[in-house]
Amino acid sequence: MADDKMEKAAMDKMVQETEMEEPGLFEQLVQPCMAELVGTAFFVLMGCLCVIESAQEGHTLQAALVHGLALAVVIGCMVEISGSHFNPSFTIAVFLSGGLELKMVLPYLISQVSGGLLGAVMAKGMTSSEKYAQAQGAAFTVLQADDHIMKALFAEAAMTCLATLAVLLSAVNGKSKNHMFPFLVGCTVMVNVLAGANVSGACLNPVRALGPAVLTNYWTHHWIYWVGPITGGLIAAALVRLFLGDNDTRVVM
Amino acid sequence: MADDKMEKAAMDKMVQETEMEEPGLFEQLVQPCMAELVGTAFFVLMGCLCVIESAQEGHTLQAALVHGLALAVVIGCMVEISGSHFNPSFTIAVFLSGGLELKMVLPYLISQVSGGLLGAVMAKGMTSSEKYAQAQGAAFTVLQADDHIMKALFAEAAMTCLATLAVLLSAVNGKSKNHMFPFLVGCTVMVNVLAGANVSGACLNPVRALGPAVLTNYWTHHWIYWVGPITGGLIAAALVRLFLGDNDTRVVM
Amino acid sequence: MADDKMEKAAMDKMVQETEMEEPGLFEQLVQPCMAELVGTAFFVLMGCLCVIESAQEGHTLQAALVHGLALAVVIGCMVEISGSHFNPSFTIAVFLSGGLELKMVLPYLISQVSGGLLGAVMAKGMTSSEKYAQAQGAAFTVLQADDHIMKALFAEAAMTCLATLAVLLSAVNGKSKNHMFPFLVGCTVMVNVLAGANVSGACLNPVRALGPAVLTNYWTHHWIYWVGPITGGLIAAALVRLFLGDNDTRVVM
Amino acid sequence: MADDKMEKAAMDKMVQETEMEEPGLFEQLVQPCMAELVGTAFFVLMGCLCVIESAQEGHTLQAALVHGLALAVVIGCMVEISGSHFNPSFTIAVFLSGGLELKMVLPYLISQVSGGLLGAVMAKGMTSSEKYAQAQGAAFTVLQADDHIMKALFAEAAMTCLATLAVLLSAVNGKSKNHMFPFLVGCTVMVNVLAGANVSGACLNPVRALGPAVLTNYWTHHWIYWVGPITGGLIAAALVRLFLGDNDTRVVM
Ligand SMILES: [Ca+2]
Ligand SMILES: [Ca+2]
Ligand SMILES: [Ca+2]
Ligand SMILES: [Ca+2]
Repeated sequence: MADDKMEKAAMDKMVQETEMEEPGLFEQLVQPCMAELVGTAFFVLMGCLCVIESAQEGHTLQAALVHGLALAVVIGCMVEISGSHFNPSFTIAVFLSGGLELKMVLPYLISQVSGGLLGAVMAKGMTSSEKYAQAQGAAFTVLQADDHIMKALFAEAAMTCLATLAVLLSAVNGKSKNHMFPFLVGCTVMVNVLAGANVSGACLNPVRALGPAVLTNYWTHHWIYWVGPITGGLIAAALVRLFLGDNDTRVVM
Repeated sequence: MADDKMEKAAMDKMVQETEMEEPGLFEQLVQPCMAELVGTAFFVLMGCLCVIESAQEGHTLQAALVHGLALAVVIGCMVEISGSHFNPSFTIAVFLSGGLELKMVLPYLISQVSGGLLGAVMAKGMTSSEKYAQAQGAAFTVLQADDHIMKALFAEAAMTCLATLAVLLSAVNGKSKNHMFPFLVGCTVMVNVLAGANVSGACLNPVRALGPAVLTNYWTHHWIYWVGPITGGLIAAALVRLFLGDNDTRVVM
Repeated sequence: MADDKMEKAAMDKMVQETEMEEPGLFEQLVQPCMAELVGTAFFVLMGCLCVIESAQEGHTLQAALVHGLALAVVIGCMVEISGSHFNPSFTIAVFLSGGLELKMVLPYLISQVSGGLLGAVMAKGMTSSEKYAQAQGAAFTVLQADDHIMKALFAEAAMTCLATLAVLLSAVNGKSKNHMFPFLVGCTVMVNVLAGANVSGACLNPVRALGPAVLTNYWTHHWIYWVGPITGGLIAAALVRLFLGDNDTRVVM
Repeated sequence: MADDKMEKAAMDKMVQETEMEEPGLFEQLVQPCMAELVGTAFFVLMGCLCVIESAQEGHTLQAALVHGLALAVVIGCMVEISGSHFNPSFTIAVFLSGGLELKMVLPYLISQVSGGLLGAVMAKGMTSSEKYAQAQGAAFTVLQADDHIMKALFAEAAMTCLATLAVLLSAVNGKSKNHMFPFLVGCTVMVNVLAGANVSGACLNPVRALGPAVLTNYWTHHWIYWVGPITGGLIAAALVRLFLGDNDTRVVM
């Protein structure tokens, strides 16, 4: 009788372990990466589509709403699955702030780059070749002369710093975490595009720039959309780690 | 004494059954269908009204806000009553993802088609015959030539896929379910109209296309607004069933 | 000793009664009415101010955002104090749906009318007399000819029916009540103004029409903005009482 | 044995006091002030950037969205850290309504003024000198003649009164406190800019005016943007203390 009970307990434990294993293999690696890929693809698709279709008119308001709301939507849908980054700057800053394991960083970056390329390809597949060419496939072409480069770099860093602060404070830092995360980050993107589109294009996300750059082979000042946003993410992570984070997040005091 | 108790228990059970019967007959079938009909009617009414009244100017922004916010409002009001579909593509995808019983699918589709027709009739009743004719009753007339048909079909499928993912992830899938469902789906519609209105009309909903088509007998490329959205819904359901769903929703791993 | 205890208990009861009396006198009547007055005044002020200041251009989008968001704001602030009606059509429909006591109806209506007048006076005090005259003080002047009156009346009733459904389902009916109430009603107003501003003005609220009408003595077709909205509210209350309400709210089944 | 226990208790108390001290020094003073500075800096940066970049066109809608949504974002991120004021009018009104200790008022005001200056400097650093000069650095220049000063003062007071009511009712007053605080205040700013931008500039926040005024040495009618908003905050605090606050907040009844 006692043997039976022990046997049953051992079997229960094995079953439990088997059940626990599944999240390990699929739910902890494949599913989050799939979510990052799908979310980034749709974000880049909608952003590029909007820019390609309204290039003649150059409507900043439409671009701001599309990029901001599309991001809010994919963040809101995927937050419980991958944490909803869709942006290498966010992934690096979230890792540095203690919200992501090191082993997930590279898989996330690969998923985001793949998603950005997929989204750009889909946008090309939906639009006429004339409109696509006219808009340079939604690549960032606002920086033509050399005189505004430092201002643009500063703007990309500062605007991405605000967006990353929104991510870190509303989704990572325990004390300030809240359920408005998707719309806070989405609204930050809207604000940044509305205010900064003419300064630097208000990209904030390297893979949003990369997709169209690859497809149209447009690399003028492309590095700015990697250096600027990632610098902004680093500054945000530093602000949170040094001053704004809660007791568990702060490293000094 | 024991007989009395048993009698009372039997009576209690009967009363209980009678009380349980009411949700069965009315709250489980008639009320959700009524909600689908009323919600779809108001969504189609506001969408058509906006297009008819601003046809001369062709304001994409107004159309995006009206369709997106009207959907958010009816979703937010009816979600506890019918689950707030108002769209055959959503109903089919929610059923395939395990969020609706088979016996409810046909009643929902009939309610949505009826609501779409009612909304289109109401829009006709509110507008002057000149404006109504000029806007072709808000039917989807963006596709005139034959050269963009495949691009439009692709766009309808991809955009409805995003909208259906928002429905399935924020309202059906247990792990990612959340209270922002109404605004996530509404914002997806806004984004789609802003980015894709010139590609395919950004319909996403067969009954939004059907109502005006019936009233103005306009059937050019009408099939696209059934095949595209329903295909998009099927792809979204497959993504959730295969990759993005939680352990209860996934069918393979 | 026993006497002392009884005396103390009697005193406690008296103190308690005095404390209970306060909510009776102030918090149950004066405070909600004050909230209705203040909220309605700010809603009408911002709505009129926007129309007066942008009359030359006639921006529908600005009017939609101002009326919708201003209503969302005052609803969100006052909902725990007065239930946030600010509109006679809502008050009548909420009363008929079981969400307000009969004795509160007249005080609410008086507070709303007073608030509407105060808001209109404030808007006059802030604007130049030229702009004020040009915009007829933000009175509803869209209906000039007699041929669209029935369409306008139908539109006011249908649009207010949707707005009132949003109020009744998201704030009164137990089953569908939810925390998005302020933004659901605000978005309904936005949608209505964007889609229906050229049909009837998309007033929906008798006291929004009354304030400017009194100050500029403009009464052309004024009755439409009372009959239309109140009819819409009655239809919404009927839909909820007969079909959409939960078991406690429905009167038939 | 008993000594040991007492010793341990004394040590525990000391450890506890040490742990309690940390929030006292850093989390209760430095961190909230840092949050006020960072939040105000980003709010003023985005507001100024938008005005400087779109000065030629003078888009009220863009200015409304940027100021309103930027405020919503920083409020949503910092509310658990500093209470999210970013505005001297709010700080004074929150203090008078019992939501802030007296010793925090001056540190908050200094942080806000510093943040406003920092934001204005950052905006200057991102924009071309031509655009910056043309927009007078985003200083409030709408008031040129002397005839509208009283109307502008009235408008600033009334509009800030509404915004401060949103702060006090949705974040300070116990009965009406709610989680929509960030978006309620943000939407109030949007509404105010859309409706009142041509009357007074719809500043509402003295430090938003101060930053650009210092950098461009523009002081025409500058006092209005201190007297108007602070008066509005005082009226809002009086309304809450006398009528709209709950039993703990009201001072009279
Ligand atoms: Ca620490
Ligand atoms: Ca499984
Ligand atoms: Ca019943
Ligand atoms: Ca008291």
